[in-house]
Amino acid sequence: MLKKIEDIIAQIEPADKTWVEKAQARTFQLVMPPRALGRLHEIAEKMCGIRRTLTPCTDKKAVLVMAGDHGVVEEGISAYPQEVTAAMVHTFLNQGAGINAISRRVDAEVWVVDMGIIPDVEPKDMKTAKRLMLRKVARGTANFSRGPAMTRKQAIEAIFTGFDLASELFRQDMDLIGTGDMGIGNTTPAAAIGTVVTGESIEKMVGPGTGVSDQGLNRKREVIRKGIEVNRPDPHDGIDILTKVGGFEIGGIAGIVLAGAFHKRPVVIDGFISTAGALVAYSICPKVTDYLIAGHRSEEPGHGAMLSYLQLEPILDLGMRLGEGTGAALAMGVIDAAVSVFRDVFTFSEAGVPNKD
Amino acid sequence: MLKKIEDIIAQIEPADKTWVEKAQARTFQLVMPPRALGRLHEIAEKMCGIRRTLTPCTDKKAVLVMAGDHGVVEEGISAYPQEVTAAMVHTFLNQGAGINAISRRVDAEVWVVDMGIIPDVEPKDMKTAKRLMLRKVARGTANFSRGPAMTRKQAIEAIFTGFDLASELFRQDMDLIGTGDMGIGNTTPAAAIGTVVTGESIEKMVGPGTGVSDQGLNRKREVIRKGIEVNRPDPHDGIDILTKVGGFEIGGIAGIVLAGAFHKRPVVIDGFISTAGALVAYSICPKVTDYLIAGHRSEEPGHGAMLSYLQLEPILDLGMRLGEGTGAALAMGVIDAAVSVFRDVFTFSEAGVPNKD
Repeated sequence: MLKKIEDIIAQIEPADKTWVEKAQARTFQLVMPPRALGRLHEIAEKMCGIRRTLTPCTDKKAVLVMAGDHGVVEEGISAYPQEVTAAMVHTFLNQGAGINAISRRVDAEVWVVDMGIIPDVEPKDMKTAKRLMLRKVARGTANFSRGPAMTRKQAIEAIFTGFDLASELFRQDMDLIGTGDMGIGNTTPAAAIGTVVTGESIEKMVGPGTGVSDQGLNRKREVIRKGIEVNRPDPHDGIDILTKVGGFEIGGIAGIVLAGAFHKRPVVIDGFISTAGALVAYSICPKVTDYLIAGHRSEEPGHGAMLSYLQLEPILDLGMRLGEGTGAALAMGVIDAAVSVFRDVFTFSEAGVPNKD
Repeated sequence: MLKKIEDIIAQIEPADKTWVEKAQARTFQLVMPPRALGRLHEIAEKMCGIRRTLTPCTDKKAVLVMAGDHGVVEEGISAYPQEVTAAMVHTFLNQGAGINAISRRVDAEVWVVDMGIIPDVEPKDMKTAKRLMLRKVARGTANFSRGPAMTRKQAIEAIFTGFDLASELFRQDMDLIGTGDMGIGNTTPAAAIGTVVTGESIEKMVGPGTGVSDQGLNRKREVIRKGIEVNRPDPHDGIDILTKVGGFEIGGIAGIVLAGAFHKRPVVIDGFISTAGALVAYSICPKVTDYLIAGHRSEEPGHGAMLSYLQLEPILDLGMRLGEGTGAALAMGVIDAAVSVFRDVFTFSEAGVPNKD
């Protein structure tokens, strides 16, 4: 059992370039013009470098939806009431949310994790209970505009929770994990993290979230400015950033990201909140990006800057801004196709097709 | 049995805006912030307007890969030898091409149509024969840089062939048809069609296709310029454009597009060649765009201008430039998800989740 974040970091290696090169050589043999399927080849080759194989697999897929509540909601930064967090957790368990509909299409399991929502979640029956994991770090974070969102101990607990849950799935041969989030108000801590890690301006990083008004947007920016001023998070210490301006579900996502790198398995990140989790993980161990696939570019304006900072090119760009893991799940369909093309398409010689000159 | 293109046009109606409005009203009730899944909502609502329903369906899907040869290849405009067209048709039948790999992932049938390749295709067994349709208009087109690519009668035959095949599938309850193409040299007629219909410059419209050299690109532009000069296609007469500078598979695709509009069913177009087919259909009947979904933006530089002309926003943008219907098939996964979100996600009241004030 790993006890310290440092124990995780010590065992993370970069993806294997020699497998990427072997994969590129195979791509050139496929019966099509050189690299004619563009990004699909890059995705498949990245998978080869991650798994150290020429037969990457996406058969077993899961989305982990990390849920948490946020003390900063009392500053009036969200368009929705705080009880929506728990209500949506029930909707996930009842198969009624966007993430459920999309995950069914790509054959991904949906797991819901209570990382720290305020009420207790009581699943209505065993069937819904099966996919719920109760890992409450606390009943919501503290209001980070007035002090740290959580203790350093809680931040580490949140990260380890995500790490352990994802590790367990990887040990059960999960091929691909997508990250998802639910937490009313969580674009506020995510934007704070984005501002601290990337160094971008608050104006660029902070958008309307689920649909706050113009006046609300100004208040949200002010709250974030205050939270950063009051807490002075250390931009080079991911755990400190999470402690000062983070969220429990964001810490859990950072843990999932670290688990992917640790186990040499791909993690597909979703939008703004998930990428904030990835930024926390990156601050802890920059090698994690080798194991990350960006599912989509969110409509939330700061997301593009976060992805650029991580040097990740998103697969989809469909004006989505829901979270829950929807962009990660939708991208899994493209990743499936990329892997199938890589594995199943004939070579020129297998097909008996004459190649260029 | 319809005898004339005019008989088809006369029965094409626009998509139904009242169903789109009803669908938009449902979207606002889904348990998520207003239109938080962006393009997914637009796609589902377009499907509702096309099918006149609030329960659009994508259960039965097919890709029709239209294959043909091109006399203009003798001008040296392609990087690959002409026999590759027929060799790739065999690869499709043997399930070894990119379109096969991607279609399996989205559960779409692949049908291959010999619209006019030079050799005869002889399937090796009954199993492969089942998905091949022999509808040769002629053994390749004539070299359009020296005169018309085909006769007007052949152009009409090509369109009717695509129309009849797609109509038969729609009558068998096909929910969604994707268009695909195979034909060595066919970015040349496609670019000629694009130039004539959109009025864009040859420089903008003509790209490297499957990978012709810089010198080859100049030759290709010259060949197209000459072809348009020699033939003077009428930009307002789609059949004339197809006759003068087209291809048999492009005519077949135009027919599929017309069939979608005629039967009030969605057609997903692929890249540069398929969109040239859509431009021919649009010149014949502009209402067809109501029934079209653009699968992706191809890497071929002129494709964006074609899509803008048709006012279609592509779903994917992944640097693909293969054809075969690969972009259409890959987009079908997103269309599936869009329809599932629309149909299966709970409303706020079903979920018991409090909505915004």
